Amino acid sequence: MADQPWLMRTYAGHSTAEESNRLFRTNLSKGQTGLSVAFDLPTQTGYDSDDPRAAGEVGKVGVPISHIGDMRTLFDGIPLAEMNTSMTINATAAWLMALYVAVAEEQGAPRAKLQGTTQNDIIKEYLARGTYVFPPEASLRLTVDTISFATQEMPKFNPVNICSYHLQEAGATPAQELGFALATATAVLDACKASPDIAASVFPIVASRISFFVNAGIRFITELSKMRAFVDLWDDLLRERYGVTDEKFRRFRYGVQVNSLGLTEQQPENNVYRILIEMLGVVLSKKARARAVQLPAWNEALGLPRPFDQQWSLRMQQIMAFETDLLEHDDIFDGSAVISAKVDELKTAARAEMAKVSSLGGAASLKGLAYMKEELVASNTARLRAIESGETKVVGVNVFTSGEPSPLAAGNAIMTVKDDVEFGQIERLKAWRARRDAGAVERTLAALKEAAKAGRNIMEPSIACAKAGVTTGEWGQTLRAVFGEFRAPTGVSLSSSEAAQGSLEALRGRVAKLAQVLGTQPRFLVGKPGLDGHSNGAEQIATRAADIGLAVVYDGIRMTPDELVAKAEADRVHILGLSILSGSHVPLVREVMQKLRARNISAPVVVGGIIPEEDAHVLKQLGVAAVYTPKDYDLNRIMDGLVGLVERNALP
Amino acid sequence: MADQPWLMRTYAGHSTAEESNRLFRTNLSKGQTGLSVAFDLPTQTGYDSDDPRAAGEVGKVGVPISHIGDMRTLFDGIPLAEMNTSMTINATAAWLMALYVAVAEEQGAPRAKLQGTTQNDIIKEYLARGTYVFPPEASLRLTVDTISFATQEMPKFNPVNICSYHLQEAGATPAQELGFALATATAVLDACKASPDIAASVFPIVASRISFFVNAGIRFITELSKMRAFVDLWDDLLRERYGVTDEKFRRFRYGVQVNSLGLTEQQPENNVYRILIEMLGVVLSKKARARAVQLPAWNEALGLPRPFDQQWSLRMQQIMAFETDLLEHDDIFDGSAVISAKVDELKTAARAEMAKVSSLGGAASLKGLAYMKEELVASNTARLRAIESGETKVVGVNVFTSGEPSPLAAGNAIMTVKDDVEFGQIERLKAWRARRDAGAVERTLAALKEAAKAGRNIMEPSIACAKAGVTTGEWGQTLRAVFGEFRAPTGVSLSSSEAAQGSLEALRGRVAKLAQVLGTQPRFLVGKPGLDGHSNGAEQIATRAADIGLAVVYDGIRMTPDELVAKAEADRVHILGLSILSGSHVPLVREVMQKLRARNISAPVVVGGIIPEEDAHVLKQLGVAAVYTPKDYDLNRIMDGLVGLVERNALP
Repeated sequence: MADQPWLMRTYAGHSTAEESNRLFRTNLSKGQTGLSVAFDLPTQTGYDSDDPRAAGEVGKVGVPISHIGDMRTLFDGIPLAEMNTSMTINATAAWLMALYVAVAEEQGAPRAKLQGTTQNDIIKEYLARGTYVFPPEASLRLTVDTISFATQEMPKFNPVNICSYHLQEAGATPAQELGFALATATAVLDACKASPDIAASVFPIVASRISFFVNAGIRFITELSKMRAFVDLWDDLLRERYGVTDEKFRRFRYGVQVNSLGLTEQQPENNVYRILIEMLGVVLSKKARARAVQLPAWNEALGLPRPFDQQWSLRMQQIMAFETDLLEHDDIFDGSAVISAKVDELKTAARAEMAKVSSLGGAASLKGLAYMKEELVASNTARLRAIESGETKVVGVNVFTSGEPSPLAAGNAIMTVKDDVEFGQIERLKAWRARRDAGAVERTLAALKEAAKAGRNIMEPSIACAKAGVTTGEWGQTLRAVFGEFRAPTGVSLSSSEAAQGSLEALRGRVAKLAQVLGTQPRFLVGKPGLDGHSNGAEQIATRAADIGLAVVYDGIRMTPDELVAKAEADRVHILGLSILSGSHVPLVREVMQKLRARNISAPVVVGGIIPEEDAHVLKQLGVAAVYTPKDYDLNRIMDGLVGLVERNALP
Repeated sequence: MADQPWLMRTYAGHSTAEESNRLFRTNLSKGQTGLSVAFDLPTQTGYDSDDPRAAGEVGKVGVPISHIGDMRTLFDGIPLAEMNTSMTINATAAWLMALYVAVAEEQGAPRAKLQGTTQNDIIKEYLARGTYVFPPEASLRLTVDTISFATQEMPKFNPVNICSYHLQEAGATPAQELGFALATATAVLDACKASPDIAASVFPIVASRISFFVNAGIRFITELSKMRAFVDLWDDLLRERYGVTDEKFRRFRYGVQVNSLGLTEQQPENNVYRILIEMLGVVLSKKARARAVQLPAWNEALGLPRPFDQQWSLRMQQIMAFETDLLEHDDIFDGSAVISAKVDELKTAARAEMAKVSSLGGAASLKGLAYMKEELVASNTARLRAIESGETKVVGVNVFTSGEPSPLAAGNAIMTVKDDVEFGQIERLKAWRARRDAGAVERTLAALKEAAKAGRNIMEPSIACAKAGVTTGEWGQTLRAVFGEFRAPTGVSLSSSEAAQGSLEALRGRVAKLAQVLGTQPRFLVGKPGLDGHSNGAEQIATRAADIGLAVVYDGIRMTPDELVAKAEADRVHILGLSILSGSHVPLVREVMQKLRARNISAPVVVGGIIPEEDAHVLKQLGVAAVYTPKDYDLNRIMDGLVGLVERNALP
């Protein structure tokens, strides 16, 4: 008797609710057994599609959901009582959960039948993903509200997915993934325990609803050992720290999306192998097998995957589950000495990380956050150095680079979001606002504000808001007014490393010479305009630039073009680097360039991101001096480009 | 300290020696670390390119090698002293080995430095692959000659690769693969032991030079257990039966090509996953890891792969070896209870098969061969039935069949061998014959004949032939004259199975009705024209046709068009089915159709094989009624087509 296969999903959503609904239905018709919703950045950060900060971002990295009408369209014809839906939503998780419940109730689906997850792990947003809004304490309180609500009302729903996923994307080592994620879970559980809403008798059930969202990289033996370590460590934590005695409440449950960081723009057809090997880490071990798997597409390093690409990734799961004999066997590593030793090694290292974070005040403390962020940036620096030096081999990138042209990548091998998506979404949103009952909106928002202030659970008031037609931006603004906003630590250490040789030494020499000529250290502004919170690239550029002697100005994510241009003017910088991974590079860069010209700032501008070749041409026409993509893995070559641009301006 | 990776090869060769040489060099420049040569069918069966039996087959499934000049061109610019070359060659292994040695000596490479293999397993040719020539006793004697020669002269060379590979391609169960391959090895070792050429003191070294060539299917946990079972069983066999006491002589060494049988023409892009999962079975276990791996390309079920496709498959090995942590760990299954139990189960079943074959007189006996062949055909029947019934799921074939059009398969996604290849090869061959020293040819062939007759080792005389410019056909004809030829058992049981339901029952009814109308059982001739020995398809068609009540005429592989047409006339058959997997379908079918017309035989003709769509059109223009490809996995639908054709002729 074979085991049941895991849930099979694809992370999907873009353009509009209508288009995403069509994509969901197509994916389900191909044998997908659950949904995984990608939301756009305005939705993730609590802005309406017509907010000025949303300009250029609407429908790009996910679907825009501005109100219950959008949510209704998104799930049109999909019975939520039978679906299992994962929503990648964090700062605004309570709001999207409220919209989900409201739409389900319209469909006649009782809350108790709803299955799925809201990601709802804000700490890893501070550390790695950047869609946080509120300060840690308020954020944790919102998390507790959703957990408490779900435990009572939606017993089959996983209100929180503690994510080690994004830590790995930010460069974490396996021990950091384990340690930081479990430290995060500890912060959440401590907050639950302290909550007057959650009775001690209910606590084991609350603990049992905490699930995880993990990553799996190419080093699959380490990865499968990591997953076995997770199972053991979670069991220990719940038993020892929280006294959860019933074994069934201590089961480690997790979903997974495998590593995107290691996918290559070079010879992109090779990514299909990487994705499959990465899946091994989370399916091979029966006792640590994923409950849900979603896989990226081979062309994710190039842009948005097409329906074919998503189908092709799904087929990988289906072949593993239905054609192989994997599900017919008990755990194939039970008894393995090699795996057991590896698991023990990871557990010891993870416990040390947990202890360190705990000693600093926990994962939600400012000191804890700063420590974890610095460690992540340092690990990512080490990871990149190993690729640059060739110590870590990446096929097609630093070994076996010559090859035949790929017929797979020929022609238009990605999808693009149409330009009119934003306009249409804004038109519909305006019409929505005009049609709804303004009084009901006002009343429900007032009730939400009161609950937020008084420390009462905000879930029922949020559901009432959803039903009254409140928008995402209104919900977000109401809570921003109560809780305030937050800027997370950047983790970037702007100093030189000790060792230097070869190209690093040469670059330092050139910068030193520039400093002589200019009479000052050349200043480099690293900017992340827009709502995109993926800061790993910017952090590494900033770190390396400081290492070669540039004076780096980097204030973290989510700066407006105005703020960046003002900074460039105030600091009289010699060069600007803009990093944008959300696909909104064209409108954002256009705005920055216009504003620079308006202030007569002539410092050269370079741009980094996931930027298709056609767009790179557009950016250059806008006056951008150089465009860097994931293909440019050698940071010193990027530095060479930056320094060269400054030299061209400064040297005769 | 990571382990050294396995040898990485790609099975390659087609068209001409020159073109294949170019392909080898390109593949090596992409990081391949060994070569694996595919020879065309005339070369494999000992015919010159201008032999009438070679018509249409030259350069199709491999490179044509008619003499040392071709071999020289094939390895031009490739230093054989440093290369590791695997040659898929069996009946004519001694000859190709002689050519290899002769070219190496021209290059100045000493025999003692030569590394690689000749496949040289004739028993599996009788059972599954069909390029045998001589009877078993003579064949085994040639095998012993090569082993004895290699042991003395080429100590780093593996003169024999015992193949379970082709048994799996013919439908073998894992226990049959193990049992029949080890029974084959026993037959070879028994012959070595009995040889006056091989001293008892040398025997352990001889045993240590026997290597294996295995297959790995999609059920990778069973497959990796199978490989561990192989290691144990080989160790037992050498210790117990042959008294090889030194452990280092008992090491199980093997190369692998993963399963092609399970690759699908439907949604062919999914084959990349199957190939990778299949590789797991032979690389995961350190103690049973392959020494050499070659992988098919995703489009092998469609036709000849392009250089891009071969590169893409190579990248899979490189990523597994260089990007993952596989080679950094000791055996990850040592201690695993699940794997240990699976290995024991397979060993018990394999030992039962070995005992059965032994009780019938061994693998080289006629009874032993007949038993193994019948078992293989029966296993393949069971395998196909399970796919037809849906019990075995195949993604894109019997589950998840709807999908997006594949951009990968768009356009011309395969290579084709140019039509003028055969003409050019024949021209060069004629010029070669005209230029060489006829006296030397005569003398060396006479010496070869004498050695063959007298039972002396034919290797040195063959090398002398090679150097004198003797052709493959001359070498083959000389030994044919001494040893005679052989026809292997077909293994096909032409009777009805007990159970029948659904479409099988309906088909039987229609055939019974036809028999009434015709006054005789409808007669169906299954033919394999040309040199192609891949008979699995023909066997399954013959078996199922008999099962529905057709009177099947099937005499096995390698029939000439003349023989088939004569048979059709003599037996007054109602329908003909031709099976051709070598890519020579157009010329062979053209000849059969012309000869049928010349004798006024109007029975309909259907053709099965790996036939691109354009070629299917050509065949239909030649008068073929239907064309079947690997896509047609439902045998009853093929039967429906056959019966329909007979009905159209017989019923009003």
